[in-house]
Amino acid sequence: MEDSPIPLRPMLKSDHASAALGMRVLADEPGRAVVEMVVREDMLNGFGITHGGLVFALADTAFAIACNEDEKVTVAAGADVTFLRSTGPGDRLTATAVRRVRSGKTGLYDIQVLDGEGAVVAEVRGRSFSTSRPSPL
Amino acid sequence: MEDSPIPLRPMLKSDHASAALGMRVLADEPGRAVVEMVVREDMLNGFGITHGGLVFALADTAFAIACNEDEKVTVAAGADVTFLRSTGPGDRLTATAVRRVRSGKTGLYDIQVLDGEGAVVAEVRGRSFSTSRPSPL
Amino acid sequence: MEDSPIPLRPMLKSDHASAALGMRVLADEPGRAVVEMVVREDMLNGFGITHGGLVFALADTAFAIACNEDEKVTVAAGADVTFLRSTGPGDRLTATAVRRVRSGKTGLYDIQVLDGEGAVVAEVRGRSFSTSRPSPL
Amino acid sequence: MEDSPIPLRPMLKSDHASAALGMRVLADEPGRAVVEMVVREDMLNGFGITHGGLVFALADTAFAIACNEDEKVTVAAGADVTFLRSTGPGDRLTATAVRRVRSGKTGLYDIQVLDGEGAVVAEVRGRSFSTSRPSPL
Repeated sequence: MEDSPIPLRPMLKSDHASAALGMRVLADEPGRAVVEMVVREDMLNGFGITHGGLVFALADTAFAIACNEDEKVTVAAGADVTFLRSTGPGDRLTATAVRRVRSGKTGLYDIQVLDGEGAVVAEVRGRSFSTSRPSPL
Repeated sequence: MEDSPIPLRPMLKSDHASAALGMRVLADEPGRAVVEMVVREDMLNGFGITHGGLVFALADTAFAIACNEDEKVTVAAGADVTFLRSTGPGDRLTATAVRRVRSGKTGLYDIQVLDGEGAVVAEVRGRSFSTSRPSPL
Repeated sequence: MEDSPIPLRPMLKSDHASAALGMRVLADEPGRAVVEMVVREDMLNGFGITHGGLVFALADTAFAIACNEDEKVTVAAGADVTFLRSTGPGDRLTATAVRRVRSGKTGLYDIQVLDGEGAVVAEVRGRSFSTSRPSPL
Repeated sequence: MEDSPIPLRPMLKSDHASAALGMRVLADEPGRAVVEMVVREDMLNGFGITHGGLVFALADTAFAIACNEDEKVTVAAGADVTFLRSTGPGDRLTATAVRRVRSGKTGLYDIQVLDGEGAVVAEVRGRSFSTSRPSPL
């Protein structure tokens, strides 16, 4: 993700999966993150549309950045995703993750994935769990 | 996914995303599918563990195969995922998708992702929606 | 729900379940609704705290009002709930449902349940489906 | 729930909410429970069908019994519900909860709600969290 327009935290510099998918981090603030990805041919499923797993992966990266907002490692405990619109090659997808609530070790984050025209592609609600491990952020 | 040990339907032969992630289809029956993937270095996130989005992508591919069980195109309307165990490079993940219920155009499928030792990595419940479009399966 | 401070639509006047649980409708606008309920002794589970099903029922009523925003009957297709805080007898719970997105026949609504001090008791994401049946609203 | 056909644990004897809804416990084994409820007029919503919150409440009680399977208090952290079929007054609903997986403090349980004819009314996946508090079971 080296060609992101903002400085990257160490955890993002070593995120090989997100880099391999061509993701770029557009915003990284406490409890909020924006990540984009342009759909490639090798991201299409057998129906010729973007593989749902990769749409989710984009949302998951934005979620991971948003929920790692303090000195402890926070992991994704789970998520609920609704797919609303299919996309295809060349489409520029943007995932915006925003903290909804934190309560004890649990957090909830809303991640919205839009296409280049601003239509909603997917909505994800991520559930985070804050561990007691120090973060290498 | 050409090196799968079973014959592939057309929709699977053209699933470029699953192929790029090295997935192999081990079983493809009405309402049931098994897909495996070996974790590579370029599938790790910034914490050095398998990116949750790619674990989900494996489950999603198994789900797509299992839910496209008749002559109509069936799509993933959404899913709920719980992550239970982290994995790393070299781990062989297996996703087994099984139909739970179909009712009208809606279906529910349970997808369990195991690691090479049989420990549960993730549990996904997928929600399918059967369209009226003929399937190119 | 006759002692609600606002005029009730017909569908709300005949909602016997919500009435039996003592719910009151505080707001009813297109895509947004607020409903409150005071926890009674007969709403407690075996641990002496509010039964999760009744917390969900409160959220579900707010969701139903918010998503029935046009001339067609809209039903709850499903929901995801996270319980964040337990409550007890006498607690005044308020559920606020807000439309997040509508796309075709599918809608997503966020319902937040607060206790009397403003702490988050539960977060629900509701999935609606608009039928082709005319609404008796 | 005193007219249940099996002996009740203390936590069930004091579950006032489930009792008020007329629930009866038909089975209570480690990791598995069956609870039934007959739909009454005061359980209907404004469309004349069973309020979704009360269908969920039935599933939630079965879930609570199934997941409290050892000496620690286990609570519902959350759940995902899909509503598949509406029901009405006089319908006998049966919820069967079965442990799917336990891993550390987290558990997943599948709860299926059937009507009297065996048709699936709702499917719930419950997420449990085991506390460190001793259980009064």
